[in-house]
Order: sequence, then C-alpha cells, then structure tokens
Amino acid sequence: MTSNDGIDETHDPGLFSWVSSANDPQSDFPIQNLPFGRYTLQGDSQLRVGVAVGEHVVDIVAAADHGLLVGDAFAAADVCRGGSLNAFMALPREKTTALRRALSRLLADGCAVRDQVATCLVSQTDARMLVPTEVGNYSDFFTSLHHARNSGRVSGREPPIHPNFDHLPVAYHGRASTLAISGTPVVRPHVQYVPSNTSQLPVFAPTKRLDFECELAVFVGVGNDLGQRITLEEARSRVFGIGSLNDWSARDTQRWESVPLGPFLAKSFLTTVAPWVVTLDALAPFRIPSAERVTELPLLPHLVDAENTAAGGLDIRLRVLLRTLRMKEAGIAPAVISEPRFRDQYWTVFQMLVHQCSNGCRAFPGDVLGTGTISGPSPGELGCLLELTEGGKLPLSVAGEHRAFLEDGDEVVLEARCERSGWRSIGFGQCIGTVSKSID
Amino acid sequence: MTSNDGIDETHDPGLFSWVSSANDPQSDFPIQNLPFGRYTLQGDSQLRVGVAVGEHVVDIVAAADHGLLVGDAFAAADVCRGGSLNAFMALPREKTTALRRALSRLLADGCAVRDQVATCLVSQTDARMLVPTEVGNYSDFFTSLHHARNSGRVSGREPPIHPNFDHLPVAYHGRASTLAISGTPVVRPHVQYVPSNTSQLPVFAPTKRLDFECELAVFVGVGNDLGQRITLEEARSRVFGIGSLNDWSARDTQRWESVPLGPFLAKSFLTTVAPWVVTLDALAPFRIPSAERVTELPLLPHLVDAENTAAGGLDIRLRVLLRTLRMKEAGIAPAVISEPRFRDQYWTVFQMLVHQCSNGCRAFPGDVLGTGTISGPSPGELGCLLELTEGGKLPLSVAGEHRAFLEDGDEVVLEARCERSGWRSIGFGQCIGTVSKSID
Repeated sequence: MTSNDGIDETHDPGLFSWVSSANDPQSDFPIQNLPFGRYTLQGDSQLRVGVAVGEHVVDIVAAADHGLLVGDAFAAADVCRGGSLNAFMALPREKTTALRRALSRLLADGCAVRDQVATCLVSQTDARMLVPTEVGNYSDFFTSLHHARNSGRVSGREPPIHPNFDHLPVAYHGRASTLAISGTPVVRPHVQYVPSNTSQLPVFAPTKRLDFECELAVFVGVGNDLGQRITLEEARSRVFGIGSLNDWSARDTQRWESVPLGPFLAKSFLTTVAPWVVTLDALAPFRIPSAERVTELPLLPHLVDAENTAAGGLDIRLRVLLRTLRMKEAGIAPAVISEPRFRDQYWTVFQMLVHQCSNGCRAFPGDVLGTGTISGPSPGELGCLLELTEGGKLPLSVAGEHRAFLEDGDEVVLEARCERSGWRSIGFGQCIGTVSKSID
Repeated sequence: MTSNDGIDETHDPGLFSWVSSANDPQSDFPIQNLPFGRYTLQGDSQLRVGVAVGEHVVDIVAAADHGLLVGDAFAAADVCRGGSLNAFMALPREKTTALRRALSRLLADGCAVRDQVATCLVSQTDARMLVPTEVGNYSDFFTSLHHARNSGRVSGREPPIHPNFDHLPVAYHGRASTLAISGTPVVRPHVQYVPSNTSQLPVFAPTKRLDFECELAVFVGVGNDLGQRITLEEARSRVFGIGSLNDWSARDTQRWESVPLGPFLAKSFLTTVAPWVVTLDALAPFRIPSAERVTELPLLPHLVDAENTAAGGLDIRLRVLLRTLRMKEAGIAPAVISEPRFRDQYWTVFQMLVHQCSNGCRAFPGDVLGTGTISGPSPGELGCLLELTEGGKLPLSVAGEHRAFLEDGDEVVLEARCERSGWRSIGFGQCIGTVSKSID
C-alpha cells in the first residue's frame, strides 16, 4: 500500500457500529463497507437513496434533513434528494468520499447523536430495492482470459482466443432497457435458432440453452465529453463503484444470430443487477496487482501505467449458487456450483473505462460496464454453464439432478465478497434470478 | 392501396399552404409532410417541439396555447410542453395523427385563422435543432442484402453472407450516448488497429479508414413491457416515423476489435441523425411491397404477414453527397456519389421492431433503430466507402480528387426523399457531418 492507497479510518478493522447486525462477521455490510443503493418504501412512491449497514439502510436525505451532515457530506447527500444516484456519482470523488466518511462516524460505536441517526434507519426487509442508477448506457466486456479460452473452444472458434484479446478489453454494447433489479423473474425468452446442424431451418421457440454469466457491474462516476478521452489516472477516480451482475444468455440464438455483428437478442431479454454499489473507497484494502500478461508483446501506452500494474486489480471472490425447484420444495439450500475470483481477470476495471472512451465515446455518470464472465483457471472457478458443462456436453450434478443448461424453476444466486487477512470482510449482497416458464 | 392505407386529405397533392415556401416543388417540407423535430431559439434555453413546413417551423405548444388546437390534437400538443418528443411518440397513433391533421388544416390555403397561426411560426434559420428524441436505446441493423454481400466479400468473410441473413434482421446494440445532431463535427477518432497483416503489433492512432454509412433512423412510438413481444400488426402502428442517420465507422479498428463480439469503438465515436422525423402517416403514399426473398426457405410466422408483404416497404430514395475541403474553398457544390434506394432493403422497418422485441426486450418511445447501410444492386447505389471503393482498393474520383476513405475537411451530406407519380414529393432534410482533425 502506498500513501495514495485510499486507506483511512473508515477501513479500520477495529471499528464497530452501534447497528449491531453490522458487527456480524458474516454480514456483507459492516461499517467498513457502506454501499449505495436506491429504494422505495411500501405504500410510498418516493425514490430514496440509502446506504446499507448490517440489516438496515440509512436514508441519506433524511440524515441531511436532520442536520447530521455538513460541508461536502451535506452537499453530496443533497443531490440525492430526487432519489437518483446518477447526480451523486457525477460529483467529484472528494465529495462522495466525504459523505462515506461522515456516515462512518455517525454509525460508529460511541456516536453522540446515534438516537437521531437511528430515526433515519429502515430495515432492509422494508426497502424495495431498485436498479441503483438510471443506466443511460450499458456495455459488456469480455475480459477473462479463461472465459475467452473456454468459450472460444466450446464455440469452435479457431484460434479460440483472437490476437486482439491481449491488446484491448473486447466489449460490445448491451441493452440498457433490460437491466433489471435482483429478483426480477427470468422469463425464458423465445428466440430464433437452428435446432441441429443437420437442419437449415431455424425455429422460433423458448431457448433450450439458457445460461447465466457471473459478472461484476462497474458504475461510472464522472463522465467525459464527446470527443474527449479518459486517462488511466483519471479512470481511477471515475470508476465510482462495483456491483454484481448476471448477464443471462440464450446460447442457441447467440450462436445463430452473432455473425457478423455479435450478440443481440441472446443477451437483451434480461440483465440482472444487485441493488448495492460498493464504492471504490470501500475497496481500497482489496486492491492488488493486475493480472500478469501472457504475451511479451507490450501494451499500448494509454492502457498501462505503473499504478495499474501495481494496484489496478481487485481481489473480489465470487460464488455462484444454484437451487432447482425440487431443491426449493425440499427445503434444500442453494448449492455452490462455482467460485470464480476477479483477481484472475486479464483487464482491470480502469482499463475497461479507458478503452471504452478512447475513441471519444461519451460515458455518463451511472453508466454500467459489465466485466464479462469471470472465470478462473480451475474447473471450480468457471462463470457460466457453457464452460461448466462444456457447452452442455457434461451436465452438472446438483443435489442429484443434472443440468446442461437452466431449467424452469432454477434459481441462480451470485454473491461477491472481499476477504483479506487483517481487514474486515465486505460483501456485495446477492444478485438473484429464478427462471420462469416462457410466455406463449 | 387498400382502404386501410392511411391515405387521407392531408396527402391530397392538390393541397397548398399559405406558407409559400412550402409550395416550392423542391421543398422537403410541403404541407403533405409535416415532420416533427425539437429545437431551441437563440438566447433561450427552452426546448421546443415543432413541425417543419417549407422554410419554417410551427411551434406546437404555442399553437395549443393560442387555442388553435382542440380535442386529441390539443392533447397531443399538450404533452410536448416539456420540449420532449418522447412523450408525444408514446401516445396512441390516433392522437398523433389527429395533431398532424389539425396542423394540415391550419397551414392550408384558405385557413381562416392563418394570422394567428403565423404568430406560431419561426424561420428554420432561427431554430437550433436537437436530436429529435432523448434516445434511451439505439440499435443498428444490417438489413441490406447488397451491403451484406459486398461488405462480406470485402471483409473476406466466407461465405460473404451468413445463412442467418435470410431468417432474421441481423443487428447489434449501438451507443445511445454518441447520437448527435446533424452538423456535429466528426472528430477523427483515435482507435486501435493493426497497420498491416505483416505486423502483430497494433497502434493507437487516428483512424485511417474513416467511413460513412447511409442509413435511415426508425423512431419507436408506443413501446412494450419487459417480457412482452410486439406483433407485426402492432408494429405497424408502433413505428412512429423515420429520419436519416449516418453511422460513421472506423474500418481499421472494426476489423481488429470485432472478434468475437462485433463492432464496438468502430461505431461509438459518433452517429449523426437528421433533425426531422417524417411520420409513418406522411409516408402512406410511398408504401410498397417488401423486397422479394432470395431463398425458398420460408420466413418464421412472427416475421411475415400479408400486409407486410404487400405494403411493408417504403419507397425512399437516398443520396450521398461529398464535398472535400478543396471543393468547399473553390465554391464547388457537394457531388452526388451514391443514390441508394430503400426499396431494395431486404427487411422492413416493421420486421426490425418485431425482431428486436421478440425475446421480450423492451423498446421505449423515442428509441432509435438504425436500418443499417442502405445499398442497392448497382455500383451507383452503394451506401458506404467500404463498398464504393472495394475496401479502399479502388478510390473514388470526386472533382479531380481521390478518396479511398474520408479525409479531414470532407463534408458528407445524406439526403432522403419520396417521389411518386401522382403524389407530392416529401423529403427528410439533410444529415450533415464534416470530418475534423483528431485531437491529440
């Protein structure tokens, strides 16, 4: 860690909260985290911005209205008044950081005004969470070397990995209109595909190869103007935070439709995001070196600098859990089917943003960049069924059932967590989707 | 034409306007057209919605405020009060049609209240036009058989046309954040590309293969809910109107970056749209049969019906004009370099919308679907330089200069017009962009 490592008193592992549920070592939301989200309360259409702590949410604007915030922290809370996080993410980093620091003090053991702060808390069970931002633009990357290699092989691409992979974080534009909050039903989409290689005739039918993709969502803070680029140094303060994301995919139509312009309807029926955005501030203790390059060819200068190499990576551990309808009915908990690690990702989130804007393309506050499927080198670290089952050929065994691809009733849960010796673990909440029958 | 052909008194070729410039046979905006747009006036930040007539614009809200509109027409104008066309396009077709009919009467020769209507007119030279809608989602199709064949051949794809082309309108998601209004400078983007096939090492440099793509922009009216599809019959009233669009492309990075997920930065630096949306209502006299299929394999049922076959096509003639800096300095007018016709397009705009939403993907009012490059069967009908110059191998000759791809200072003008014997011609205005030097 350097003096610029962003570590401050909010990360102190000795810090505890008077919100007792935040002190549970298993909690995703200890006082060291304080992720941002958006919600409504039952019977009330008012959009609210909140911060998770233990099993509660702090209403930011209520805290401002109670006179609990001053200076930059007040200014940062004040822009949340309309219930949007976009304006908040558009603020310079020092203002959003000031709000997080202020909240840390208000929620810490020994806070003198805790009774007033307590009036700004609601239980998470009473909050109906929303997609964290109004997402103007959503792009999805392809930045795992292992996923690229595995999916290339399964899809019959030759070579499995195109030479561009080493030189730029490959990506495509996704569909902002189908980003939906965790818990939204995954209605099995009708898609067009060719049932077998022996037929020329496609069908239009419910997809038979429904898959998940375990990803992270990168939320943009300060954006750029049309025609302007973002440097790697700038990107470090323009990535506001990280959430988790499931890029549901219909593999049969993906194969059929993607020539020559890439995936379209295979991905645009639903993309689920978790409700909480973990700030880059909170992730400071979990910065690690970026992944090692597998080529001796150099990176182009705009995509590399010493700090990215030293600390551009994020040590985020992911888990994919699956629960079939039968398991649910039998009261069996979701089973872990994969544990990818974001430390294996070939490109950093900062390189993704730099690349995205390198041609002068605008990024707006609240835009989302999906990292692409996160897969590691081991069989237990693969981020989608296409890889886990070798394209359906080697079905997965889960509690005595078999899955080549997802069946109706299957529930997929993505979890993400940062754990490091000497630091308090923080988590990202769950990103959940249950497959439901197609609509005729 | 059937009894449902949408032809009414507004299309009467004998109709003239007291706005004399609208009666010029060369005008894009006779009283039979009445396209919608959005603008501001100098020194005034108020966003306004207007309709073009001759060389003027009618301020819709001003007309409502002057008591010139009643019933559905008033209701339709009333939602334009915030200066957005999105809410207007979200209205049921009968309401938007009612406003167009009312405006036709108000602008027709012999209108008793013409003096009052005249107070709602501003000169187009005083209106600063904006992108017509707040575009939530932009997708771009690939629906010209000729473009598919030519670009496939030039790009070395084997076969040049993938079998999917006959069965679905291929498309990719574009970048809504870089849609910009006609006249926006086309700053040559820095992109990553491999200079030649002999090198392994990419460079990051201003693109050397900057191209235009002559397209139309399809504006969505009433949208759909997540998980719901749109039928072809519904699509006919959910395509609100058509504008023109230039999908600027950097061919060097397109080739390099597109494997395996399609174009990304090759397209996202700028997409220019013309200011006017010609309504489907105005296009009623120019409906023609859809293009003939080149395969005996049948279309899937959701993508075909008798009315689409009989009248799903639109007879829109396009023109691409180029003026180099030297021509401009010498006072030489832009030269016509191509005249594609949309009648040659393989898929109809209604099929595009049906396909886009066939997996339950949401479309919102004001969303844009680009048609993809429009090319015809003849050398004089090709919609981009990639095709016109065979990938740069056969440079185009323009006023004594040669162009493989666009040079700094080149101005590209797209025009579109409907002409049919017995009917008044209508046009789409111009979609213009001038290439400027890259920013270091």
